[in-house]
Amino acid sequence: MTDTSPRTVRELGEFGLIARMSTGRAQVPAVLLGPGDDAAVLAAPDGRFVVSTDMLVQDRHFRLDWSSPCDIGAKAIAQNAADVVAMGAAPSGFVVSFGCPPDTPVDFVDGFVEGMWAEAGRVGASIAGGDVVRAPLLIVSVTAFGDPRRTPVLLSGAQPGDVVAVAGRLGWSAAGLAVLNAGLDPARFPGVVAAHRVPQPPYRAVLDLPDDAAITSLTDVSDGLLADIGHIAESSCVAIDLDTAAIRDEELDPVARELGEDPSDWILTGGEDHAFAATFAAGQVLPAGWTRVGRVADGAGVTVDGVRRSGPGGWESFSEGR
Amino acid sequence: MTDTSPRTVRELGEFGLIARMSTGRAQVPAVLLGPGDDAAVLAAPDGRFVVSTDMLVQDRHFRLDWSSPCDIGAKAIAQNAADVVAMGAAPSGFVVSFGCPPDTPVDFVDGFVEGMWAEAGRVGASIAGGDVVRAPLLIVSVTAFGDPRRTPVLLSGAQPGDVVAVAGRLGWSAAGLAVLNAGLDPARFPGVVAAHRVPQPPYRAVLDLPDDAAITSLTDVSDGLLADIGHIAESSCVAIDLDTAAIRDEELDPVARELGEDPSDWILTGGEDHAFAATFAAGQVLPAGWTRVGRVADGAGVTVDGVRRSGPGGWESFSEGR
Repeated sequence: MTDTSPRTVRELGEFGLIARMSTGRAQVPAVLLGPGDDAAVLAAPDGRFVVSTDMLVQDRHFRLDWSSPCDIGAKAIAQNAADVVAMGAAPSGFVVSFGCPPDTPVDFVDGFVEGMWAEAGRVGASIAGGDVVRAPLLIVSVTAFGDPRRTPVLLSGAQPGDVVAVAGRLGWSAAGLAVLNAGLDPARFPGVVAAHRVPQPPYRAVLDLPDDAAITSLTDVSDGLLADIGHIAESSCVAIDLDTAAIRDEELDPVARELGEDPSDWILTGGEDHAFAATFAAGQVLPAGWTRVGRVADGAGVTVDGVRRSGPGGWESFSEGR
Repeated sequence: MTDTSPRTVRELGEFGLIARMSTGRAQVPAVLLGPGDDAAVLAAPDGRFVVSTDMLVQDRHFRLDWSSPCDIGAKAIAQNAADVVAMGAAPSGFVVSFGCPPDTPVDFVDGFVEGMWAEAGRVGASIAGGDVVRAPLLIVSVTAFGDPRRTPVLLSGAQPGDVVAVAGRLGWSAAGLAVLNAGLDPARFPGVVAAHRVPQPPYRAVLDLPDDAAITSLTDVSDGLLADIGHIAESSCVAIDLDTAAIRDEELDPVARELGEDPSDWILTGGEDHAFAATFAAGQVLPAGWTRVGRVADGAGVTVDGVRRSGPGGWESFSEGR
């Protein structure tokens, strides 16, 4: 018997590809109308919705030899979901534009779609629609929607005296990237390599915050802690001091020793872990999942143990280095 | 004096590029929070919102030698706005992901941004946020939001006996593309070439429909009239017959004569004009801007003057031909 099932996107065709991305999947109730019409329709019970968008480009944001198709799909959804959650909103749905060469294997599509839906399900949302186009390399553009569960938590609300806190891991994705860049066997450091391949934003630390939690500012750590805390400091017109003792992570030490690196560099400047960084009013007992890592004061800028740090602060899209 | 203003995106940097895309622009009231935080916040006064997304890839959906930066920005917004309007919704905002090489001229960015904002303004919306990334070629991914002004008008509502009607031009974009492909001087046929560079969806023909207009199905013509009317026929489980006498367009005749083409091919299968095609209940006097082009009957499929047409029906993203 000959297997006549399509092996590439060219054989699948545009409408076959679209079907592959959504047929047989269950939409969450917030998606009132899913794929198949000119546009999707989503519920916005609060009378407003939160929206964020991110584009991932092959060989820039992922590499086919370092990540599985499923990893790439999960990562694309996770980093967008983290932006929505970083407003204090619950993800409701995603739309995904997918560009690929005609010779892209159908197996790639299937893994990618599986990863997207799994991560969307993890945040209680679904893929409400999208677009597929021909492109010379893989391009994934995701737009995420969220339902504000509270007044949106902005970058600009930190006040002198507030406590700075973090939920989730810092530096793991950067450590994993360093392992891969150095050509080490990923199996020796599976934790950090997995963290690089698919971030695991601690969504619940935000979504389960008590209604009366005195959270004053919030962001996700996508450019590096120094850079993202810097955005809070700048938007809030305050100074922030970080306490390195509080953000040490002994699990990174063996990787750092092997590579001769300082793990605090990964922790302070590594992006893509999509941990959450926030400020809480002084006196607020930190909710579950949050660790105190610094404090807010009058002034401007970010210091580490009282000292202003020089050197690169985080990711910059058009720099040559990365 | 030396001009030290940045000339490329590399010199501008990521945050300079982001600023270039939104600083000094006025958001419409529906955009409650614009660029600058982790996500934007938009109003959804109806308690639901319409969303559509489309990706444009350089040399596939536009060519730098055929379109100005401003044309490309306007086209990216127009084709997404048309999808939202094709649900019977009024566009409220857009988010835009923009991928480009570091050596992209700042002049390109400025023209592109101007085109986006001009077209967004034309539909009463604004650019609420986005993402900028490094990519080996220009990629534009737009997601459009809309506020349903009526119960969303789907593909699936056509009924036997309904009248098929079109608002806007058909075949102009395809004729313009044919002129450019043939290497003719665009100045000889400026109307169709302009239509190819920037579609002009007749938004008002939908947005100004009376509340009680008996519109039963609606789509925008992006894949070609036969293909898009085919989507209505298939979704509604009906047959549709188109009347070529009603869709003739004498303005295309000189172009067709010059190129030795049949203008009815452009009219029936040309995509990208983003005209609107709809069905109205029998007896409905057609609202302003709409022309009767056919009728709905029991059965399945699309016929032209009673005859089933063979051959390609419209755009297919992964075919080799176009």
